Amino acid sequence: MAKELSDFSQLCIHTITTKPWPIEKSAAEFSKAGIGGISVWRDALNGRNIPTVKKMLGTLNLRVVSLCRGGFFPAIDKKQRQLAIEDNLKAIDEASALGAPLVVLVCGAAPGKSLAESRKQIGDGIAACVDHAKQAGVKLAIEPLHPMYAGDRSAINTLAQANDMAESLHSPWVAVALDVYHLWWDPQLEPEIMRCGKNGNLAAFHICDWKTSTLDMLNDRGLMGEGCINIKEIRGWVEKAGFKGFNEVEIFSNNYWQQDQQEFLEKIKTAYLNHS
Amino acid sequence: MAKELSDFSQLCIHTITTKPWPIEKSAAEFSKAGIGGISVWRDALNGRNIPTVKKMLGTLNLRVVSLCRGGFFPAIDKKQRQLAIEDNLKAIDEASALGAPLVVLVCGAAPGKSLAESRKQIGDGIAACVDHAKQAGVKLAIEPLHPMYAGDRSAINTLAQANDMAESLHSPWVAVALDVYHLWWDPQLEPEIMRCGKNGNLAAFHICDWKTSTLDMLNDRGLMGEGCINIKEIRGWVEKAGFKGFNEVEIFSNNYWQQDQQEFLEKIKTAYLNHS
Repeated sequence: MAKELSDFSQLCIHTITTKPWPIEKSAAEFSKAGIGGISVWRDALNGRNIPTVKKMLGTLNLRVVSLCRGGFFPAIDKKQRQLAIEDNLKAIDEASALGAPLVVLVCGAAPGKSLAESRKQIGDGIAACVDHAKQAGVKLAIEPLHPMYAGDRSAINTLAQANDMAESLHSPWVAVALDVYHLWWDPQLEPEIMRCGKNGNLAAFHICDWKTSTLDMLNDRGLMGEGCINIKEIRGWVEKAGFKGFNEVEIFSNNYWQQDQQEFLEKIKTAYLNHS
Repeated sequence: MAKELSDFSQLCIHTITTKPWPIEKSAAEFSKAGIGGISVWRDALNGRNIPTVKKMLGTLNLRVVSLCRGGFFPAIDKKQRQLAIEDNLKAIDEASALGAPLVVLVCGAAPGKSLAESRKQIGDGIAACVDHAKQAGVKLAIEPLHPMYAGDRSAINTLAQANDMAESLHSPWVAVALDVYHLWWDPQLEPEIMRCGKNGNLAAFHICDWKTSTLDMLNDRGLMGEGCINIKEIRGWVEKAGFKGFNEVEIFSNNYWQQDQQEFLEKIKTAYLNHS
């Protein structure tokens, strides 16, 4: 059974969720609502001085939960793979400057490469970043993506695969980010969550909902309660596995992005208490 | 390594692939092209006398590979579940009248039910049809669907689950239909194909391709070679697992349905020889 949620201290919202707002506005509104955490997407930092943003978030009493995102390691040629590694090292530096303890990795999948090759390149790419992550004190979290993204966004599509990879890299600086949107359908989800927690790899928990029907494969995620995901049950498993971090609301939605963001934030708060 | 394909004797096309054509036209064109098999969708039989269609297909020397489709067992109330079972019994009778040895099952998922409950209802639903299938001499093939359909079309989303269910029902009249579109991403695909073959459950093999990007979650499948699925490699596994049946082209595509179907059929033939 999941813990009762009665306030927003354990709620974290991703800047992409309220994409129409600049990070300064999102942060001010999250803070005013008593929300405990913020996960920052790199595009939200465009044109900003990162230490200034860090200070702003600290003043607002918002915990920086993660920086989104690194990854996209596989590529057809070696030069592109090296550029991907360099971009991940930069993401680690940005996370460090921002005070984010975690960089979430959308691992990538190279069209023209087999899934097996892409997976090998992902492992090699992460391995090439681990020392830098350690020096910066920033964890790298492998986020398995829904199988509908296997062709172009991630060749890591189940929690079992993410667990395998995190365990094989064997570093306290490599972990796993679990998003209910990507993994809710998996019949092995509960045992793999337990395995992930047992091995100390459960580093982030993302929530939203899966709508039937989904109109856009990228940007039609639902608010908690609008779809068919057993979010509360999964949160119970995550807590049973020892996770004590934030419940992160990450919603890409052309629908919600077109609406008034202040009203959307109220909907998120209500949905969080009633359907998470 | 997959066998070389040098003619169309082992090719089967689903009537839905050339949906704009009535079954009489599809059958005549498939036959003229030397294509060996046809899988018949129930909507293609609307308004027809099934024995007449059977005779027509026989005259054209087309093997009827399967009837599509039964399934959709889970439902909120018992009455709906009973109606689903009755519809599946009817599908078995139709398959028998048509001379189809197989009914493909899209198993269903009830919004408002957990996946675990839906899976239980699927198992119960199939079990309720097995005696009738045996009497009719028609196999029921569980087709695992892509996880993106877990919310509303099938709670069976991996070959492992289909294998588990087929094995637990323990009947020579229950088997599995494998579609590369639904399963290509699965890291366990190869061993699960071997398990499926070993247990005598590999009853059908469907091909098409996964396009990056996919514009419609239902009706934007690609022609073989247009996407990222390792079709030939998977066919090699299927053959290694002992499968000697047809390679069935099943493409739902708003794009291709709008085109000239004669030209589309030529494209299918070329893609079959070069990219399957």
